[in-house]
Amino acid sequence: MPITVHHQPPTTNHQLVIVGSIGLDDIETPFGKVKSALGGSAIYASQAASYFTKPSVVSIMGNDIPEEYLKILNRFDISGIALTEKTFRWTGSYEYDMNEAKTIDTKLNALSEFEANVPKNYQEAKYLLLGNIDPDLQLKVLSQMKDHPFTLLDTMNFWITSKRDKLEQIINKVNFLVINEGEARQFCQTPNLIKAGKMLLNLGPKFIVIKKGEHGALLFSNNDFFSAPSYPLEELKDPTGCGDSFAGGLIGYLAKTDQISEKNIRKAIIYGTAVASFCAEDFGTKKTIKLTIKDIEERYDFLTKIRQF
Amino acid sequence: MPITVHHQPPTTNHQLVIVGSIGLDDIETPFGKVKSALGGSAIYASQAASYFTKPSVVSIMGNDIPEEYLKILNRFDISGIALTEKTFRWTGSYEYDMNEAKTIDTKLNALSEFEANVPKNYQEAKYLLLGNIDPDLQLKVLSQMKDHPFTLLDTMNFWITSKRDKLEQIINKVNFLVINEGEARQFCQTPNLIKAGKMLLNLGPKFIVIKKGEHGALLFSNNDFFSAPSYPLEELKDPTGCGDSFAGGLIGYLAKTDQISEKNIRKAIIYGTAVASFCAEDFGTKKTIKLTIKDIEERYDFLTKIRQF
Repeated sequence: MPITVHHQPPTTNHQLVIVGSIGLDDIETPFGKVKSALGGSAIYASQAASYFTKPSVVSIMGNDIPEEYLKILNRFDISGIALTEKTFRWTGSYEYDMNEAKTIDTKLNALSEFEANVPKNYQEAKYLLLGNIDPDLQLKVLSQMKDHPFTLLDTMNFWITSKRDKLEQIINKVNFLVINEGEARQFCQTPNLIKAGKMLLNLGPKFIVIKKGEHGALLFSNNDFFSAPSYPLEELKDPTGCGDSFAGGLIGYLAKTDQISEKNIRKAIIYGTAVASFCAEDFGTKKTIKLTIKDIEERYDFLTKIRQF
Repeated sequence: MPITVHHQPPTTNHQLVIVGSIGLDDIETPFGKVKSALGGSAIYASQAASYFTKPSVVSIMGNDIPEEYLKILNRFDISGIALTEKTFRWTGSYEYDMNEAKTIDTKLNALSEFEANVPKNYQEAKYLLLGNIDPDLQLKVLSQMKDHPFTLLDTMNFWITSKRDKLEQIINKVNFLVINEGEARQFCQTPNLIKAGKMLLNLGPKFIVIKKGEHGALLFSNNDFFSAPSYPLEELKDPTGCGDSFAGGLIGYLAKTDQISEKNIRKAIIYGTAVASFCAEDFGTKKTIKLTIKDIEERYDFLTKIRQF
C-alpha cells in the first residue's frame, strides 16, 4: 500500500519576498566615514532576514556595483533584482547624538527606472516585506502577489510629507506597520506615542510597531501591548540601516517559524532588535555580514535577562 | 522555663527618612493649570513612599500652607519638618511635548533658612532618600545619620551646573543614584546612556538608575543591567513630581521589604514606575493622594505582562 502524503508540497520555495532599494552610500558619523558602502533598504533587510530564511529580493541595481559586494547577494534569491547602469546613491551624515540621518545628496539613478515587477515564482510567497521605498511601488508589488501574503510595511518621513495619500492606501492594505518614533508623531500629529499607536491601528494594520532606537520598540494590537527593550550599545558607529535590519530580522523570523500569534510576534521583535544592534556597531553592512545565528541567539538571551523582575 | 526572645526590638520606628523641599507650585501645561499646588521633592517622594511604609520627613515649610494640605502630611512623620513664615514657591510650565519643565519663577522663602537638622529619633533609620535639594544640605543630612543607612540620591540639572564638586562628593557617599536621561548626558558629557551609566558607577554608588520618562529606566550595577519599561500613558497632564515619586516609591518598597538584592531592586524600580505613572495623570498630588495599594499592584502586574516574550 502506498504511503499517503496528506500535506501539499510547497508550490514555491519563495517563503519571503523583500522589496526595497539597493544603494551605494557615502556616510559620515562622528566615528568615521565610508564611501560607496553597499546599502539600501532591500540590502539591510534581506541580510538581516537571511539568518532565518533565504529572502527573495525585488529591487534594482546598476552594473557599477563593485564585485566584492556580489558575494553578499549570494545569500538571497536575486532573480527579482533588475539590472541597469547606475546604482542609486545616497550621501548622508549624523550629528553627535546619532539620532537622525541628514541627507546631503541623493542620486536616484537606477531607482528612477524601477518597475517593481515581481517574478512569477515569487508571487505565492506567504510573507512579504515592503521595505522603505515609494508607496506607489509598494502598492504595485502587493497587487502582484497571490493570496495576500502576511505583509510588513516600512516607510520613512519623506513619504509622509510627499505622498501621504498613497502611504495611507498601502498602510490600509498591510498586516503590520513598522514606523519610527519621530515619523509616528509626525504622521499622527501627537507627541504621545501611545495615542499614535492606537491611531495607526485604526488605519488598518493588525499590528503596529513604533521603533524608538536606543529606547526599544512598542508593539500595538487590538488585544496586546508589548514594550521591547533595546540592546544596550556602548559603541554606536553608524545607525544607517538599523531600521531596515530590524524589519528584516522580524519578518525573517516570522517566515521561518510561520506562526502569526502575538507571542511569536513579540519574539520576532526581539530577534529584529538583536540583528539591528549589530548593524549599528559598524559602518554599512560590515558587521551584519559576518554574524552567526549563535551571535544573534546570544543577544536574544541577553535581552531576555535584562527584562526580568 | 521562660521563652527567650532572640531578636532585638527595633530601636527606632523610623525605617525611612526622606529629605527634600516642600513647595507651593504654580504649574501650566498644555492640558491646564494650577495655582499653589502642594509640591516639592519631599512631598512627592514621601507620598509615593507612604504606600509602602511611613516616611519620616526632614524639610521646611511656611505657615502659609493652606489647611487642606495638612491632611496630606498626616501620612508622614512630620516632626522633622521645620516651620517658618513663607513656603518655597515655584512657577513652571511645560511645552507641547511635556519633556522638560521650564522654570518661570522661584521664590526660595523657607528654603533659604533650611538647616536640615535630622531629629535624633530619625538618625538610626536604615533607609534614607536624599531628595532633590542643595547638595550641601544632602551632605549635612547624611553626616547626621548613624550606621550609614542605605541611601538613595536624587538631583537635578541645576546642581550639576552650579555645585558640581559638592554633587560629586555626595554621589561618592551614597549607595544608589537616580538621575534623569538629560542630566546623565550633561553630567557625563556623552550622548550614550550606557557609557554614562558606567561612568556614574565609577563615582561610587553601587547602583545607578537613569530615568527616561516615557521610555522607562535603566539600572546599572557592577554585575547587572536592567531595562525597565514605562507605564504606557495616553493622558499625561502634568509631569511635575514624577521623578520624585519614582524615587519615593522605589525607596519605600526597599524600606518595606528590607532586602537589598539586585532582584529586589528591579522590583522596587517597577513599583516606583507604577506610582510615578499616576502622578503624571493629574496636576500636583491630585491623583497620587487617592491611590490604594491595589491600584499600584494592578499597574505592577500590567508592567509585568508588557515585558514577557
